[in-house]
Amino acid sequence: MLSQQKTRPRAGGRSARRALRSASDFTMLAGVHNKIPTCEIMTGSQVERIDAASMDILENVGVVFRDDRALADWKAAGAKIEGDRVYLDRGLIRDLIATIPANLTYHARDPAKNVALGGRDAIFVPMTGAPYLRDLDDVRRNPTLDDLAMFHKLSHMLPGLHSSAHHIVEPYDHPISQRHLRITYSSMKHSDKTFMGMTTSPKNAEDVIDMCRILFGAEFIDSHPVVTGNCNGNSPLVWDETMLGAMRAFSRANQPVLCSPFVLGGANTPASVAASVAQLNAEALSALAYTQVIRKGAPAIYGHYLSTVSMKSGAPMAGTPEISLMNFMIGQMARFYDVPWRTSNTLGGAKTFDAQAGYESATTLSAVMHAGANYIWHSAGWNEAGMHCSVAKFIVDAEQCAMAHRMAQGVNFDDFDAALSAVGDVGPGGHYLGHPHTQENFQTAYFMPEMFDNNSIEQWQAGGSVEITERALNRARKLLSEYQEPLLDPAKDEELRAYIAKREAEIPAADELNQSY
Amino acid sequence: MLSQQKTRPRAGGRSARRALRSASDFTMLAGVHNKIPTCEIMTGSQVERIDAASMDILENVGVVFRDDRALADWKAAGAKIEGDRVYLDRGLIRDLIATIPANLTYHARDPAKNVALGGRDAIFVPMTGAPYLRDLDDVRRNPTLDDLAMFHKLSHMLPGLHSSAHHIVEPYDHPISQRHLRITYSSMKHSDKTFMGMTTSPKNAEDVIDMCRILFGAEFIDSHPVVTGNCNGNSPLVWDETMLGAMRAFSRANQPVLCSPFVLGGANTPASVAASVAQLNAEALSALAYTQVIRKGAPAIYGHYLSTVSMKSGAPMAGTPEISLMNFMIGQMARFYDVPWRTSNTLGGAKTFDAQAGYESATTLSAVMHAGANYIWHSAGWNEAGMHCSVAKFIVDAEQCAMAHRMAQGVNFDDFDAALSAVGDVGPGGHYLGHPHTQENFQTAYFMPEMFDNNSIEQWQAGGSVEITERALNRARKLLSEYQEPLLDPAKDEELRAYIAKREAEIPAADELNQSY
Repeated sequence: MLSQQKTRPRAGGRSARRALRSASDFTMLAGVHNKIPTCEIMTGSQVERIDAASMDILENVGVVFRDDRALADWKAAGAKIEGDRVYLDRGLIRDLIATIPANLTYHARDPAKNVALGGRDAIFVPMTGAPYLRDLDDVRRNPTLDDLAMFHKLSHMLPGLHSSAHHIVEPYDHPISQRHLRITYSSMKHSDKTFMGMTTSPKNAEDVIDMCRILFGAEFIDSHPVVTGNCNGNSPLVWDETMLGAMRAFSRANQPVLCSPFVLGGANTPASVAASVAQLNAEALSALAYTQVIRKGAPAIYGHYLSTVSMKSGAPMAGTPEISLMNFMIGQMARFYDVPWRTSNTLGGAKTFDAQAGYESATTLSAVMHAGANYIWHSAGWNEAGMHCSVAKFIVDAEQCAMAHRMAQGVNFDDFDAALSAVGDVGPGGHYLGHPHTQENFQTAYFMPEMFDNNSIEQWQAGGSVEITERALNRARKLLSEYQEPLLDPAKDEELRAYIAKREAEIPAADELNQSY
Repeated sequence: MLSQQKTRPRAGGRSARRALRSASDFTMLAGVHNKIPTCEIMTGSQVERIDAASMDILENVGVVFRDDRALADWKAAGAKIEGDRVYLDRGLIRDLIATIPANLTYHARDPAKNVALGGRDAIFVPMTGAPYLRDLDDVRRNPTLDDLAMFHKLSHMLPGLHSSAHHIVEPYDHPISQRHLRITYSSMKHSDKTFMGMTTSPKNAEDVIDMCRILFGAEFIDSHPVVTGNCNGNSPLVWDETMLGAMRAFSRANQPVLCSPFVLGGANTPASVAASVAQLNAEALSALAYTQVIRKGAPAIYGHYLSTVSMKSGAPMAGTPEISLMNFMIGQMARFYDVPWRTSNTLGGAKTFDAQAGYESATTLSAVMHAGANYIWHSAGWNEAGMHCSVAKFIVDAEQCAMAHRMAQGVNFDDFDAALSAVGDVGPGGHYLGHPHTQENFQTAYFMPEMFDNNSIEQWQAGGSVEITERALNRARKLLSEYQEPLLDPAKDEELRAYIAKREAEIPAADELNQSY
């Protein structure tokens, strides 16, 4: 592990906050250093009870690894195998996960945008995997590579986002079998923040790693995290060949993977919050342990996708109280094992960017901040249960992340005495707006959201009664008009393009849809 | 103080949660017993630093009491007075606030709706004071007594609300000088939950107390809290004659008052979160102490109204990070003094019930739950910075309160072992929907919000693409069609009406607008 002290930019700071308020300053906020106390919803003995239950599941129910290579690996590691089911002894699990680094630093193309992860350090990463977008005119349609590039540009410019992720939307205008190459190139080209890598097949994951070797140097990435892969579990208790192969590509290359059980509470977990977390925890531990079988000491992140299921439609719900509780609990479990953890942010099930989307998103954001999550994925754009990414919501969510970033800095006592002397100066019945302390500190003391309209209704009507969706789309248009590409090194760019051309010549084009969340 | 053990209904419980899901069951949820750990954003020494700064303000800057009677009371209590400015020694403050009860139980007309307050016990109270409403057709207009009655009926029926409050909207069709009588009668008549009492003048407050004596008996209310008054401060550091006179009416009658500094961060407090809280804390302490000068041992609640001010419009903002931080801090201060505290919930500055309103409201709700607030006011309907109460938002906010109520119950481990055995039964790759444990527990394990649409877009479109505002208004119409008045005792009803008739004959009608927040 690199020392994060050396590379992490100073969290907070007046200039970073001021930057956010200027439409022409796109300075990324430093990684979140979260000073909100973690919400310890379980007692220590309840944490141990979840741990013990998960270990019982791993030992006695077992986990299916639908992958011959993984079964062979587990056999060599000393696990008991029956068919494709692996029974994992708690001693083995504990030994394996002990070598997962508690902290890491992502290295971005622009070193000023390196970000720390783990402990109290967290990052906001936009949503990915949407088969539809709501575009700059709020029209819902299938996305293209140009749409994906647009989201990568917005991710680059929005100060509250620390990553450009990968396939924020699915680019339908390119053959699916070759899509991962164009997606990765788009992430690399349009932003110099860190990004994610496709795990849609083991070979696709290898392509991502090869492209990272070109961009950062093969030697460099072998000892520095530069990209993140996500591997979803098939809950309950199954890991499939695609995900395990992709995991091997990332872990072998010493790149972090999110080990993400996929919980639809009540459908693929029990009708119990505590037991659902016990199952999810067993699943996450089995994958986290496998990363260390692949390469001891490789970074790995305790993941999950959490929803509860609507009895009416069978669809995943967002913003429900059990999702908040499960986030608090999973945070406790990840800290118990001393591994960084991933959550999902600003999820919405609304069909449009309406009040439902607002309630759902803010509830989730707040829960993950109090839960102390590290890799805060799906932080912008998610709506309609992930079926579309909304440009308008993307903009507003990113500002919400900046607001959470501010909250996470906690209470500033630096100028407490100076501010108190203003109380004496102003005295009973006075006002502060004219006081020098106010004039000097107003801009930085109180966050003013650009996407929230706080005018009177008369002012608002005089301005054309512009609703939040239109305000956000106007902001997106303005951002895009001011976008400046952070140019790739020309030699590396050429090498990346040559790699893509070579691989596209090798890979047969196909046209079916392939999604990963 | 009455023992709350005797009167508080069991928090949570399967039936209460199930009740919420049935459109025909209006059973009030028990008072919130909040198991979410309080968010201790300040260290112990920072809490002491705020306390010390507030005491310095009280001793050296002083507080203006614009009221001769209060000045005389303070003089008799041993405070130093200069003009209308009172300098309060920290020893005197600490002695006085020591007799404020840490816990109380509100007695409602229906004893099954008594609710505990203080410590971990909290209640949700709808918004009040709106000069406009957005009605059942989402039209923004001035309200009438019928509109107020409608909101009292909805408050009565919505399980997540524990109070019918008072002038949720300002009834413009009745003379202002007599309005408090009709408002109080409407609260009493249309709901048997606890309610609030008008403090628009000392005499109005006396009328409220007299009406409570009729409804509950004079002797009963002298030892049982039945109504809540709110007294706003004129920050910085001023309490006026109206508020102090009303405070005396309530405290003398042993009824709780909210002692509420009114913070517009940056305008009437310093441009510093910590110093703003120090000033607010000094203001709250001065009023809390005065309640004990009025009547030792009278219940009193640490209050505040919190906003930060938009530099663009000068308007109050909602849902900003500093408001969340201040809520966490004020919770710590109230616990430091061991007094119950009031906050404001689900505030919105949006002009319509749009995504902005959703983000703002959910952010605030989450903050106040983590802050451990007790008297959670403005919990339904607030939008446009309090300028209107929205029927649609009222319905959705009340469901949000029910969701927060569920979250506050924490994690249920009661059926953990039974739920875990389902994991073994189902095994890797199985599904839980058919398992007996799921079938028995699904309804209660996961909250399903009625106001959130979680259907697919195809289902949603087939149903007419109904947005959340219309869904909520439909729900309001259905509730009102099923409303059954909890009839007043006929003799008491007659006595209340006679009291109103007598007072209306005595009070000259006036027609100007009078608001209190």
